[in-house]
Amino acid sequence: MRIAIQGEKGSFSEAAALHLSPAARMRYCASFAEAFQALMDARVDRALMPIENSLAGAVGENYDWLRIHPVHIQAELRLRIRHHLIVPPGQSARAIRRVLSHPVALQQCRDFLLRHPRWQAEAYYDTAGSVKHLMRERPPATAAIAGEPAARAYGARILYRGIEDNPQNYTRFVLLGRSPSPVAHGNKISIVFITANRPGALFKALAAFALRAIDLTRIESRPIAGKPWEYSFYLDFRGNLRDPGICNALRHLDEMSEVLKVLGCYKEAEKIYQ
Amino acid sequence: MRIAIQGEKGSFSEAAALHLSPAARMRYCASFAEAFQALMDARVDRALMPIENSLAGAVGENYDWLRIHPVHIQAELRLRIRHHLIVPPGQSARAIRRVLSHPVALQQCRDFLLRHPRWQAEAYYDTAGSVKHLMRERPPATAAIAGEPAARAYGARILYRGIEDNPQNYTRFVLLGRSPSPVAHGNKISIVFITANRPGALFKALAAFALRAIDLTRIESRPIAGKPWEYSFYLDFRGNLRDPGICNALRHLDEMSEVLKVLGCYKEAEKIYQ
Repeated sequence: MRIAIQGEKGSFSEAAALHLSPAARMRYCASFAEAFQALMDARVDRALMPIENSLAGAVGENYDWLRIHPVHIQAELRLRIRHHLIVPPGQSARAIRRVLSHPVALQQCRDFLLRHPRWQAEAYYDTAGSVKHLMRERPPATAAIAGEPAARAYGARILYRGIEDNPQNYTRFVLLGRSPSPVAHGNKISIVFITANRPGALFKALAAFALRAIDLTRIESRPIAGKPWEYSFYLDFRGNLRDPGICNALRHLDEMSEVLKVLGCYKEAEKIYQ
Repeated sequence: MRIAIQGEKGSFSEAAALHLSPAARMRYCASFAEAFQALMDARVDRALMPIENSLAGAVGENYDWLRIHPVHIQAELRLRIRHHLIVPPGQSARAIRRVLSHPVALQQCRDFLLRHPRWQAEAYYDTAGSVKHLMRERPPATAAIAGEPAARAYGARILYRGIEDNPQNYTRFVLLGRSPSPVAHGNKISIVFITANRPGALFKALAAFALRAIDLTRIESRPIAGKPWEYSFYLDFRGNLRDPGICNALRHLDEMSEVLKVLGCYKEAEKIYQ
């Protein structure tokens, strides 16, 4: 199986993809847009995308692509995110002046970086990419923040382990295909809808679920491009698409929506991969 | 009046602050965290923060700081965001090989950049900062993407105007103080709340507003740090804190919430600053 991910060899996305499919071959993409396009063009069989982080929140761009592209969520996965300070072998802590990483990783290690005021934090497009850059270009006095797979992938050394401020740091990923997965074993459903923009519209939409005691696990709003201050809503809830109560709830919601799209019915992630 | 903003001289935040208070002196901060801290430490009178963009969505980090710090929203402002390709005087379009800007600005000019495949887009921490860097360091063959105030502030030249993919590009800012503004003229209220994590909790919370025909203009969810997959909810709605119906709605919501904080009662922005 070929899986498109955003990021380099050694990225958290790659680690997540290999947990779901250990023999998969990765297609490393420079952007989320490119990974979605690779799936649409059938250059890969699946795409694996981060959708939310327990500290940083929703990956808004991926929510947008989920609505725009005819893709289907087939599985989800939760991965513990641990950040390490990584250097080329032989580099001492004392000589460090510059630390590269993805802006979200830098922010998640803020307290650690504040304890080292002589280090200049610098944004890089990717966590694993910052380690790759370190090992290939050997910029002087520079370290990177990334996960353990990145250190392994490029033969770099972990100088400090687990430097994130908050250890409750998890990312939820979704595995996407061009067709829906068989619903037989699904116990979780993701949808997106747009209501008419009138008072009480969201309340009435949520009534479709509350009146049937359907358990929402997540709501996310995203702006609609070209319609400032109007929003689409994303819901995750427990259930299977064959359950008559769920079918009724979706029919009820459809009545009150201008747009309603089922993003997928899949098995809820129970385990957290470390 | 001294106003803290995140960003450099010539940034969109500075432009927004000067619309609200033309004689204000800016305090330029490297991060949102630093701008909030400057306000809390009384090193400034106000802080002005972007809170959402009509294409990119919520500025999640600022929602988090609004809940954590004892600050009050005193006003809001909407600013049209126009991006330009900016170069040092004398630099020709033909010689460009590299384009610097904030990642969100690069993403909002994606179609324009795709039409120039020989240009390498590169993330920079700030739009105006990328123009400043261009003019101070004069890196070869490099352009920046930023707003007109940035070109003016550093004496740079606009080579292409309005290069954003979608012209419906607006950012909403909030002006923050250490005390609430007088509620007499407020017609909009922002709150944040956390419900008990049980089925139907959000629906019951929204009932406090729907049952009184109170018009919600915005809902945003944010993860709670340290409690993965639990969320706080931010609402904006029309009304004044002295209105008995609004008071009842907030009392009703408080009954069902573990946390409820009024972020401010202020005058809704009618105008869009260009």
